[in-house]
Amino acid sequence: MADAPYKLILLRHGESEWNEKNLFTGWVDVNLNAKGEKEAVRGGELIKDAGLTPDILHTSVLKRAIRTSQLALEAMDRLWLPVQRSWRLNERHYGALQGKDKAQTLAEFGEEQFMLWRRSYDTPPPALEDGAEFSQSDDPRYATIPSELRPRTECLKDVVVRMLPYWYDAIVPDLLAGRTVLVAAHGNSLRALVKHLDNISDEDIAALNIPTGIPLVYDLDADFHPVTPGGTYLDPAAAAAAIEAVKNQGKKK
Amino acid sequence: MADAPYKLILLRHGESEWNEKNLFTGWVDVNLNAKGEKEAVRGGELIKDAGLTPDILHTSVLKRAIRTSQLALEAMDRLWLPVQRSWRLNERHYGALQGKDKAQTLAEFGEEQFMLWRRSYDTPPPALEDGAEFSQSDDPRYATIPSELRPRTECLKDVVVRMLPYWYDAIVPDLLAGRTVLVAAHGNSLRALVKHLDNISDEDIAALNIPTGIPLVYDLDADFHPVTPGGTYLDPAAAAAAIEAVKNQGKKK
Repeated sequence: MADAPYKLILLRHGESEWNEKNLFTGWVDVNLNAKGEKEAVRGGELIKDAGLTPDILHTSVLKRAIRTSQLALEAMDRLWLPVQRSWRLNERHYGALQGKDKAQTLAEFGEEQFMLWRRSYDTPPPALEDGAEFSQSDDPRYATIPSELRPRTECLKDVVVRMLPYWYDAIVPDLLAGRTVLVAAHGNSLRALVKHLDNISDEDIAALNIPTGIPLVYDLDADFHPVTPGGTYLDPAAAAAAIEAVKNQGKKK
Repeated sequence: MADAPYKLILLRHGESEWNEKNLFTGWVDVNLNAKGEKEAVRGGELIKDAGLTPDILHTSVLKRAIRTSQLALEAMDRLWLPVQRSWRLNERHYGALQGKDKAQTLAEFGEEQFMLWRRSYDTPPPALEDGAEFSQSDDPRYATIPSELRPRTECLKDVVVRMLPYWYDAIVPDLLAGRTVLVAAHGNSLRALVKHLDNISDEDIAALNIPTGIPLVYDLDADFHPVTPGGTYLDPAAAAAAIEAVKNQGKKK
């Protein structure tokens, strides 16, 4: 495409061990479960079957995204790709809710508060104190982040603010260099990126969900605007079904 | 150690699918076998149990080294480490011998020629023509290496020459920055590095073997000279046994 010089592939990690347990995860570094591993391999196969050849990989520093990328690249026979990782691609920090049971939290705080924390653009959960269980304050991977920058809770707006510098400083230069870029990350760091790319309003982003394990491809024009708004899922039927399932889940709650 | 400011950990990948088949591998991108995967995990556990905490990972672009590093880092719970890959850490390119059966090659060319290719410092096997079976001339991972630089066969001396720029330009700066560096690579790229570090003569390097999966730790002084010549294996008994086994193998041949 002459008017779409840049190609970006987004991949949300597959199901994790805490999905099954219905716990808020955030920055807690849980592993993929067996289903999540399969989703990752399938994601790689979809990219390969579409004839796409990523030149570089960007991931968060959380193992569910890293292992997803490794399994997907192995399925593409592209384990050798250069890779960059950043906490700026991490899942949203879920504050004091990290490690808590979702159903229990809903019962304890009521549906209005619960949905506000889950879906409002700018209301973060209470902060998680340094040193608390499920805090990452002593984790060596964050040792280079000054204390005043390190999140202790985040709303989606906070994720947009901390993710965007990485988009501009690390991903855009790779796209400008002509590389097909694969980003393996999380529900909310990818929602933050899609919000930016598609210029989605603070209100409308609440309804946007990105399914796990289905690569979402963006062809971007010279100004990094999507040629096809919302991008293109490599398995559109599966993506639509997954998005519909999340919507119905919301209704039941 | 006040007089040993730099810490370097070398890890040779575990057994691969072609070890079992007794084929010359070189740059052919074969995977680990089940034993090799176990060796990799054990290598990570040894590093963890020694209380060592690598800050950055360097690997080749071959999947047997990459997967070794991933399994080892997972065992250390350090999958999040920054990583850099380079063809300069690849195994020695085995030229026209790549993909050939070792026993058959020995029978065909005789022991003298066979041992010259395997162990002499400066006699490479015949070159592998571009486009031949087991050539990597069309492999996208090497697309950025100009043709005149890309190996078509190598002796150990060639490996030293192409590996050293990576040592100086990529690894030394990480050591200077105070990072504990993990290098996951291959028998001959690691022999080349050890030859340089320990200042081993062209003659004596022939007798030096590095066992698979056993981390070799170097504490380096301000001039990057080993405080303990030859470094320290994290499982010295297993390393000695493996080195002895290789020596006896040589005697039988």
